[in-house]
Amino acid sequence: MQVSSDENDIPTHWYNILGDLPFDLPPDLPPESSAASDEQLKLQLPLALVRQSTSRERNIPIPPEVRDRYRAWRSTPLIRAERLERSLGTQAQIWFKYEGGNASGSHKLSTAIAQAYYYAAAGAKRLVTGTGAGQWGTALAIGCQAFGLECKVYMVGTSFRQKPYRKTIMQVYGADVVPSPSPDTASGARLLNEGRMDAGNIAFAVTEALEDALANDGSQLSVGSGESYSILHSTVIGLEARTQSERLGIRPDVVIASLGAGSNFGGIAFPFLQDRLRGTSEVRCISVEPSACPKLTRGVYRYDYTDGSGITPLQKMYTLGHRFRTAGMHAGGLRYHACSKLVSALRHHGLIEAVAYPQTDVFASAVLFSRLEGILPAPESAHAVHAAIQEAARARDAGTAPVILFCLSGHGMFDLSAYAQYLDGQMEDVEVTDEDIRASLEALPTVLEPTA
Amino acid sequence: MQVSSDENDIPTHWYNILGDLPFDLPPDLPPESSAASDEQLKLQLPLALVRQSTSRERNIPIPPEVRDRYRAWRSTPLIRAERLERSLGTQAQIWFKYEGGNASGSHKLSTAIAQAYYYAAAGAKRLVTGTGAGQWGTALAIGCQAFGLECKVYMVGTSFRQKPYRKTIMQVYGADVVPSPSPDTASGARLLNEGRMDAGNIAFAVTEALEDALANDGSQLSVGSGESYSILHSTVIGLEARTQSERLGIRPDVVIASLGAGSNFGGIAFPFLQDRLRGTSEVRCISVEPSACPKLTRGVYRYDYTDGSGITPLQKMYTLGHRFRTAGMHAGGLRYHACSKLVSALRHHGLIEAVAYPQTDVFASAVLFSRLEGILPAPESAHAVHAAIQEAARARDAGTAPVILFCLSGHGMFDLSAYAQYLDGQMEDVEVTDEDIRASLEALPTVLEPTA
Repeated sequence: MQVSSDENDIPTHWYNILGDLPFDLPPDLPPESSAASDEQLKLQLPLALVRQSTSRERNIPIPPEVRDRYRAWRSTPLIRAERLERSLGTQAQIWFKYEGGNASGSHKLSTAIAQAYYYAAAGAKRLVTGTGAGQWGTALAIGCQAFGLECKVYMVGTSFRQKPYRKTIMQVYGADVVPSPSPDTASGARLLNEGRMDAGNIAFAVTEALEDALANDGSQLSVGSGESYSILHSTVIGLEARTQSERLGIRPDVVIASLGAGSNFGGIAFPFLQDRLRGTSEVRCISVEPSACPKLTRGVYRYDYTDGSGITPLQKMYTLGHRFRTAGMHAGGLRYHACSKLVSALRHHGLIEAVAYPQTDVFASAVLFSRLEGILPAPESAHAVHAAIQEAARARDAGTAPVILFCLSGHGMFDLSAYAQYLDGQMEDVEVTDEDIRASLEALPTVLEPTA
Repeated sequence: MQVSSDENDIPTHWYNILGDLPFDLPPDLPPESSAASDEQLKLQLPLALVRQSTSRERNIPIPPEVRDRYRAWRSTPLIRAERLERSLGTQAQIWFKYEGGNASGSHKLSTAIAQAYYYAAAGAKRLVTGTGAGQWGTALAIGCQAFGLECKVYMVGTSFRQKPYRKTIMQVYGADVVPSPSPDTASGARLLNEGRMDAGNIAFAVTEALEDALANDGSQLSVGSGESYSILHSTVIGLEARTQSERLGIRPDVVIASLGAGSNFGGIAFPFLQDRLRGTSEVRCISVEPSACPKLTRGVYRYDYTDGSGITPLQKMYTLGHRFRTAGMHAGGLRYHACSKLVSALRHHGLIEAVAYPQTDVFASAVLFSRLEGILPAPESAHAVHAAIQEAARARDAGTAPVILFCLSGHGMFDLSAYAQYLDGQMEDVEVTDEDIRASLEALPTVLEPTA
């Protein structure tokens, strides 16, 4: 196996693509109504993270304390999938950056460590967050552990009960985990009193987390991993991959990553996209989404809420509508109804590509990959595996030999029930009709778009 | 984090400690009765593995095909647990060799790959094995995948039902997995007809596997990971660690590993013990067992069956009696009633040390370790973590600064229910009384010991 990894590959700065964009992002708009005041929401975020979201500085220094923590698992290996190449009979090279080898099991730890650092530096004693399947909660628990913060996680109740392993690993890492709705908040208690213990979802978990943070001194809300600063922190992935590629003498022609909100995709793609923005490369960056949640491939570029609750500021982005619901899909991390404004703008300006695949095809590729390469991909990451295989097969048929790079963003050790369903022939694809999307888009807020 | 790993560290030869021992091992004796004839059992094992079990050759070449496969995850990292050192306030250095980062999640893959290679080279088309919690079955499934063999796993029925993830991961890697007792064999069908679907155990699973292998052309039984050749293959771990230590300029004073049958312990310890046998080192090698299954610390050095069924040859080893049963203990891989004859003889001759710890102390150390070092140890491996912490604390109290090396033999991602039990305060220690051991030892076969 060809692997490249060296501690010295960890960059000293994150890459801020805003510094290279030839256009401005449409401004955020205040929400129509809000459970919390705009002021309250702002106070939740350390100034350093606010600045990172709007800065035009190309290279933002990684604090030494964060870089030191990165050294616990970074640089991550850049691995050549030689057996996969051979089995496909392709001349393409397939490389992947493996982000699943850390304590949290996914790429999210790179921003969780940074966020915990900035909150601690700003005086927080305790972080509160909401989590769905638990990946973000796990990463944040580890981040808090690293910087001496307490961590409280409101985990969507159905996941709490169906995924006890995810709950336990957060507890191992010292987090206080409760199912949402929970009796710890007034809004949670209200639902429980009505007997609606299964009424929770990620938006409600975040609402409870916010209520908790506002009610407790020294506590602050951590929103999650879809913000601009999360993408910024995640560029450590692509920066490492670029350094490793240079050392190996390869130059990716195609960079592929799955798309939840954007931190995974932007994390690996932006440092390569920089070369394209500067005209020194024609690299293709391809985002991969489930056909059950096709925001970039079938959504609209409009103003929408970033969560399902309607309390957050409005952002212009590709969206299926904040009321869009995806059922029966295993890649929980790709279930988000929209795509971060940054990645959306790149798509709008034709700088990136987007594809969507049904989950049974994705799992077929994941099983093939794990048998050949010995790493079990998370369902989210499996989308990138599948897209890379499609590209390599196309190259074989066209007689070309591109260098393909994809991000294997997390391991699938906690997703074996999905694999079991696939292997037992019980997995179904979720069909999304145009009518579904049209109906969901009707709930989009009507706003007067500012002229850019 | 200080980490050392380099593909060139993979050795070209395994280390055979028989070549350096100043004494002979007591010979095996035929079983008193046998379900399968001695001849049948012998036919199951490729000649290469038979030879490896008795050879006095110090260095046994690793076939290029095996070494090539090792490159998929080896060399494994040698990591310094600096945060753990600091939190203990010790001057001791604590290093660990991490064997959990591969597709199987444990050290067992190093021998599974080698075994699959030798069986395939000897003409087998299909391997059949028995597995308890599933670690061995997972490793063998991957080994079979690597060399184009079919793989059939008889998994102890209670584990099959309680640990569906373990079952699924074997299926992902292409194995055909059935619960034992199973309708696929006459002996399994008999139990099922009697309504005894929960009567299975690892010995019965191996019995079914043997019956299956004998009944199907091209099929052979793979016994598992406790044989002398398994220890031999596992020395790749210690050999790498020795090379890595030399490059880092350190020299372990203490080498620690948990003890199931012996492949994990022997795998890391023997290459270091070689220096001691040659008089060039005074390294201490410490095996760690659960106090609920204290074969080396409280067992007797006698002839016994290597499994619970009484069909295998008798070997002289430290044993608690082949009828010894351990209940309520989470480290399934350390549940074996005895210790391989090779490790036993070393203990008998005073060349290694043995300690035993209760599981609640072991889990406390495992939680501490994962919070500080970001790797969740399997319960088996957690025994070594705990022993290393004890040694480091002793060094602190004594004002010494030894270099401690332990093997972190596998990850605990599939053992989170045990962690949950510990965190919920529901875990209990299993007390083994002298009377328990005395009663179990009464079942030992009476044999006329050959004079050595």
